[in-house]
Amino acid sequence: MAAVKRYLFTPGPTPVPPEVLAAMGAPVVHHRSPDFRPVYERCLARLREVCRTESDVLLFTASGTGAFETAVVNLVSPGEPHLVVSAGSFGERWKSMTTAYGADVDTLEYAWGETPDPEDVRAKLAEREAKAVWVVQSETSTGVVADVQAIAEVAKEAGALVVVDAVSSLGAVPCEMDAWGLDVVVSGSQKALMTPPGLGLAAVSDAAFERRGSTPRFYFDWEKTRKAQRSLDAPFTPPVSLVAALDVALGLLLEEGLDAAFERHVRLGRAARAGAKAMGFELFSPDEDRSAVVTAVRSPESAEIIKALRDRFGITLAGGQGDLKGKIFRIGHIGWFDIFDITTALAAVEIVSAELGLDVERGVAVTAALEAYEHTPVA
Amino acid sequence: MAAVKRYLFTPGPTPVPPEVLAAMGAPVVHHRSPDFRPVYERCLARLREVCRTESDVLLFTASGTGAFETAVVNLVSPGEPHLVVSAGSFGERWKSMTTAYGADVDTLEYAWGETPDPEDVRAKLAEREAKAVWVVQSETSTGVVADVQAIAEVAKEAGALVVVDAVSSLGAVPCEMDAWGLDVVVSGSQKALMTPPGLGLAAVSDAAFERRGSTPRFYFDWEKTRKAQRSLDAPFTPPVSLVAALDVALGLLLEEGLDAAFERHVRLGRAARAGAKAMGFELFSPDEDRSAVVTAVRSPESAEIIKALRDRFGITLAGGQGDLKGKIFRIGHIGWFDIFDITTALAAVEIVSAELGLDVERGVAVTAALEAYEHTPVA
Repeated sequence: MAAVKRYLFTPGPTPVPPEVLAAMGAPVVHHRSPDFRPVYERCLARLREVCRTESDVLLFTASGTGAFETAVVNLVSPGEPHLVVSAGSFGERWKSMTTAYGADVDTLEYAWGETPDPEDVRAKLAEREAKAVWVVQSETSTGVVADVQAIAEVAKEAGALVVVDAVSSLGAVPCEMDAWGLDVVVSGSQKALMTPPGLGLAAVSDAAFERRGSTPRFYFDWEKTRKAQRSLDAPFTPPVSLVAALDVALGLLLEEGLDAAFERHVRLGRAARAGAKAMGFELFSPDEDRSAVVTAVRSPESAEIIKALRDRFGITLAGGQGDLKGKIFRIGHIGWFDIFDITTALAAVEIVSAELGLDVERGVAVTAALEAYEHTPVA
Repeated sequence: MAAVKRYLFTPGPTPVPPEVLAAMGAPVVHHRSPDFRPVYERCLARLREVCRTESDVLLFTASGTGAFETAVVNLVSPGEPHLVVSAGSFGERWKSMTTAYGADVDTLEYAWGETPDPEDVRAKLAEREAKAVWVVQSETSTGVVADVQAIAEVAKEAGALVVVDAVSSLGAVPCEMDAWGLDVVVSGSQKALMTPPGLGLAAVSDAAFERRGSTPRFYFDWEKTRKAQRSLDAPFTPPVSLVAALDVALGLLLEEGLDAAFERHVRLGRAARAGAKAMGFELFSPDEDRSAVVTAVRSPESAEIIKALRDRFGITLAGGQGDLKGKIFRIGHIGWFDIFDITTALAAVEIVSAELGLDVERGVAVTAALEAYEHTPVA
């Protein structure tokens, strides 16, 4: 096969910078040796900086779902009231998971693609108290980014803990753990943190730590991990290559600056939406600055578009999940993306859409995207 | 700092071949794309070959402990009788873990360094039945490799399931899942499978799968993972880089041949023991062919030896755990090791021991090791 450049434009895993890949490929060191401890210490400090918290950020060898499960098994006791906010695939997953562990789950349920309203959360909590409110910040399945700050405010007023699925949002959009009073922030290595999948994290406030429940746990026990990490150890062999890679990636992110990264994601979102609209596509995800992580585009031909992008150009986009399968395609712009990734994705979508006989306007998407990226101030 | 060659001679993580590191550093691909599925399929098939089983080998983003926990949460129901065989750090861990999940745990407990006796298992099971017998094949903390075949035979006679911690043994010493009637074999990527840490596996027999219990679970649920894997998917984003790396490592292992790898480990163990004894050290681990994974050597100066090896030669050995701290050092020879790694470790131990003023015989360890490696037939 001829050398074909490949483009990973999916909302996770996301592209990984070469410096980070180089760290992945470095010789393995022992996790209790002086070769690893300084890397580990720096990585943990950088994670606190990215989460904007003074609390411990606990690392787990696990996917984002596994890291989320640490919150469930540490916080949920059977029969306790909990409120899950669900507006997509991941909200549904957390409803299933808290239910599986015996929580008495109330769900604030929205149609996929809707944006959770803090006032609805207030109403639910007025009806029935909850030990914790479980909320997805960036619902990767729909492209919606919820207003977690406002939801957290309402939840705190009602005395509930706030657990945030920030898997696809941490590092891409603001997630101010301490300033917003979030109790648990869960994320994974493979999204805006620009590292291959395999590492999950849970930043845990003292308030959450003190309200741990009675569900049995061992591998995912916060206390074991917190105790070990505080002496720069890990309770179980950590994935040293992934930790070293994450450390490099976090260095890149913090060198750019978190606020600059957030602004870049806002601009990338604007560019993707402007380009898609210019071609004549209808957006599925909201046309708003906050939803700056994934741009979901309606198209009954999405499956054909995705296949053609892959076959002709080596470009990977994601389709829809669940009921959205075959109805949308999703352009991820989380992490190591710049404007030219967006123009590449749009140009390729334009070409294959035209070849598939779709009625798309030609020659406008890239220009519209560049203009949206460059010429509008970010608040 | 000048370029110093570094040697990782610990029993996990273990050294990783450059071909495998290169796979770790390759660009990330999407786990549901044609870039990944063939790799995944081949890796799963190779794992079945390494476990010598027709059963599903379930992959988890987790350490070996996490993979072991999948067996506990899927098999244990609260109050059920289980028998744990413990003769070291990992046996104690599985006792704690099964107890944490509410099993009614009976323990066949040995002093660290003793070798479990199948007749003791028989006697325990005659006293009280158990749903499962939990046994460590290679107790990495002591260097003892148990006779899992004989223990399994006794357990099967008593109608118990057999769960084997093969974390540091799979691929190094025989572990014949189907031929020996093992129900669950748990391992990790970072030992004889010559891959960085981060991937855990559990090979699960139909008998074990059918006797799943009532403990709540989600991320570690066997059914979710088995169902997804059977359609070449994963229930949660898998660590694609580690899977690709493991696939390369398993290719190397199977190219050598499992039986050849087992024989190599037997010879490496003989060499390490012969060299240590020739210098005048006393062995802690048994002087027998089966214990071919880690050679544990008694020395009150073990901490000083380990520090000097690191400072002078960039060599990492492991010390003792628990009560053995400061009393032994351990030379790992699991996975990507050859005889010259053993002679390097021995030569360096000889030099630093002499410098520390210990009464070691000089100039004999390397010769004794080479002779033991070369000149004795393996049954």
